[in-house]
Order: sequence, then structure tokens, then C-alpha cells
Amino acid sequence: MPFADDVGIELTQAAGGNAAGRLTLEERHSSSRERVVAHGGVAYALADTVGAAAVLSINDFVTPTVDMRMDYLAPVTADGTEMRATAEVLSDGDSVATVEVTVTDDDGETVATARGTYKTGGGGGETAWGGDG
Amino acid sequence: MPFADDVGIELTQAAGGNAAGRLTLEERHSSSRERVVAHGGVAYALADTVGAAAVLSINDFVTPTVDMRMDYLAPVTADGTEMRATAEVLSDGDSVATVEVTVTDDDGETVATARGTYKTGGGGGETAWGGDG
Amino acid sequence: MPFADDVGIELTQAAGGNAAGRLTLEERHSSSRERVVAHGGVAYALADTVGAAAVLSINDFVTPTVDMRMDYLAPVTADGTEMRATAEVLSDGDSVATVEVTVTDDDGETVATARGTYKTGGGGGETAWGGDG
Amino acid sequence: MPFADDVGIELTQAAGGNAAGRLTLEERHSSSRERVVAHGGVAYALADTVGAAAVLSINDFVTPTVDMRMDYLAPVTADGTEMRATAEVLSDGDSVATVEVTVTDDDGETVATARGTYKTGGGGGETAWGGDG
Repeated sequence: MPFADDVGIELTQAAGGNAAGRLTLEERHSSSRERVVAHGGVAYALADTVGAAAVLSINDFVTPTVDMRMDYLAPVTADGTEMRATAEVLSDGDSVATVEVTVTDDDGETVATARGTYKTGGGGGETAWGGDG
Repeated sequence: MPFADDVGIELTQAAGGNAAGRLTLEERHSSSRERVVAHGGVAYALADTVGAAAVLSINDFVTPTVDMRMDYLAPVTADGTEMRATAEVLSDGDSVATVEVTVTDDDGETVATARGTYKTGGGGGETAWGGDG
Repeated sequence: MPFADDVGIELTQAAGGNAAGRLTLEERHSSSRERVVAHGGVAYALADTVGAAAVLSINDFVTPTVDMRMDYLAPVTADGTEMRATAEVLSDGDSVATVEVTVTDDDGETVATARGTYKTGGGGGETAWGGDG
Repeated sequence: MPFADDVGIELTQAAGGNAAGRLTLEERHSSSRERVVAHGGVAYALADTVGAAAVLSINDFVTPTVDMRMDYLAPVTADGTEMRATAEVLSDGDSVATVEVTVTDDDGETVATARGTYKTGGGGGETAWGGDG
């Protein structure tokens, strides 16, 4: 997935409605020039990627994001911090799936959580909604 | 802002509780290797950046994102498409502000919308919540 | 709709992907015993009801709520205040629709906004997801 | 709390950033006249009430809801079903708190989840934001 690669996201697991991924925080991920503090979009890109992987792991077609809410519980600071995300499908229906994502830092502290709704109702790579979000 | 720069986001306006920005879609922003379709994290990074700029334009301190919901209305495809975002502060209180962001494509079609809550209650660049997200 | 009736919600319009409704604030809607200030659930019930009506107006089957986000911009106080909600379908797909709802008070001030995702993909009154939420 | 009473919500616990409550589903809570299926506003009112109680349990002032997202995982049907909600404060800051709420049915199945942001930054009962939502 080009954007996930570009941001530095590595998908480490995806099976049975669960998925996991990680990212090492670098200066370029920062929202500040003075010190490294993860931009909100970094945790979100990680959460959306891992969430989509969890849904896709139990569906046959690409599963575009319909909506996602991100809650930031604590800032992620310091160059080199590893952000980890785990996703779990809470409900998987014919047309939509609901996913929960938890993002932690090196110390295992939860720094952000997300809830997302993904389309599951087919529609292949040729449709307008062919991507993961 | 390093991450916004890294993703290719350009902030074009920020004053009086409103802000605007844009991004030209490239292959690296895609969620698919076969064709260019914007990853959900791209529109989100744009929305969060522009939303934070709108809040900051009427506040004295950095305004970290507390939470944001993103709704995807249509996929953004094709290399070279310009995504534009406009943000408006709907309510600006002592401790939090609520922002609405609209993301459109080249044709002016709304492709995504976001609602975000940002902290406004001070806390300078030295605090843990010193970034925009 | 029994619950909408029970809360005092009146649906005033529903056609072409738009809907409107209203509710007169009473003591029983309050979250406080000392004065009348609308409980968050009142604006939500109004928004969900009107949002569902907007989606249903352009679909053939009941359209259960998948998720909804409510943002409270200002408190609604005073006994007898009329809360009005208007809903507009932003996107109506084969499996889901996205709706925006705006809630105003007597003075036309926006007191809350909502974004909701509803299922549109059929499933009649006999299915588990047969209600509007 | 008048509205919670009116809907039939009973708060059963609130201490240390956790809270619990319940509601017995009746015909009046339904979104359908033909059978009892909980209106989305019922689970929301329960979640918002219990969420506010969790935040208030570790704060000195009323804590108005800033925003809340509700995800519906399964319909709640049948007259007499008891809906139970538990809330946990995930983060409690000077100006806002983030809360997670889980709603289950008689069988312990999770039927809905919510994430909410509440104001914690003081402001007493006399302010405009004096309610819980």
C-alpha cells in the first residue's frame, strides 16, 4: 500500500478479524519543528491502515473506510518511539463492519483509540470505492 | 509543520477562525498499487492540519486535537487531482473548539467531511500536548 | 415511532433526502433538577430521528443507524424552547448513506450538529436490523 | 436527572472514573410500532448519562458533553430486555476527559459502544454549560 509505505507503516499481522501494525516516529512525522510530537494524521494513518486490514482479513473484497473517529489520549513524543496499533472487528455484517483500534507507545501506554466503519459489501477494485479509504 | 510538508500539504489561508489548504494527489498517496486512490489518511491529514490552523488563528496557544471524525463521501482518484480543504470554527470556548472541515476535489465535489474537537485552553509549546494532534 | 413520540419529537418534513423535525423543551428533558438544560440525549434523539427520516425518504427499506457523532456547540436552556433539526443526505450508496444534521434553537442559533452513517442495503422489517437505530 | 428518569435509566454505580447504569426496554422505547426494537436514542441516552457520571465521579464540577460517537453493533429487541452500560474514563485532563462506554444486553452481548469527550474545566452549575450534555 503506497501511502502506508510512504509514512513508514508496517503491517505485522492480519487474520481472523484482527490486525496489528507499527511505525517508528521520525522528525518528519512531527507537527512541530522544535521537537518531535506526532501529528494527528500519523496515528490516524496507522489506525486506518490496521483497521482496514482487520476487516479485509475476513472479507473477500476491498473494504473502503466509510467513517472513522480518532480520540487522542496522550501525545506521542521523542524521535524513535515505536507506535503500535492493534485492530479488532467488533461486528462484521453484509454491508458494513465496525472496528476498534488501539494505539500504544513504547511503554504500552494507550495514546489513541479509534472506531471505524468500513464497507464490506463487495465492489471490486474497479469501482469508485475500490481503495481502503 | 514537518508531517504536513512531508505529505505535501500546503496551508493557503488561516485567519478569523477559517483556514484552507490543499494537496496534489500523487502515486505515493494511494492505498492501491494498481491505480491512484487516496488513502483515508491523506484526507485526514489534510483535514486535521487545516482544522488546527483554523482554531489556532483565533487562539494564542497551540491547539492539540482531542478527537476528529472523518466521513468519506466519495473516493478521490487519478494522479494529479488537487484536494482542497476548508475549515470553519463552529464554536470556540475557553477549553475546547469545534471545527468543521470540508474536503473537495478538482471539480468542487465534496469528497469528505470532518468534525473535530481541539483544546484551546492554553498550554504552551513545552507541554506534553504541545503539537496539533 | 414510539420513542420519538414519547420524547415529544414531531417529524415535520421528509422528502428527497431531506427531513426536518422539532421538539419543545420541557422540564422532563432536562439534565438538571435546578433549571431546564437539555440532556444530550434529547438533541441526539431528535437528530437520529430526523436523520433516519432523510435517508428513508430516498430508500425503500428501513435504514438502521450504523453510527452517529454528535457535537454540542451550545447548551439549550429554558422551558418551552423549540429545538429544530434539519437533515440532509450527503451521500446515498448501495449499502450506506451519510447524513448531516443541524439542530437550532428558537433564535436560529446552531446548538448541535451530527454526522451519521445509516444502512441502506435493504433488509426489511423482519431482520434484526429492522429499526432505525 | 429528569431526562434519565423520564427514559427509565437507573444509575447503579459511579466512582473512581467508572460508572454503570441500566434500563429495561419497553414498547415506548421502540423505533417501530410492529415490534420492540430500541431506538438509537435510547442506547445513546443511557451511554451519555453513564459516561457523564464516570467523568463527574473524579471531577468537582458538572461535566458537559462536548461530543459523542455511538456505534450500533446489533439491534436490541424484545420487550423487557435489560440494557446495561458501563463507562470508563480513558483520560482525564484539566480541560477535557475521554470516556469509553459499552452497552450490553441480557445475554452480555455488546450491542453498542460509545466514545465521548466531556468538559472537565470547571464552570459550575450556573454557567451555560451547566448540564451533562
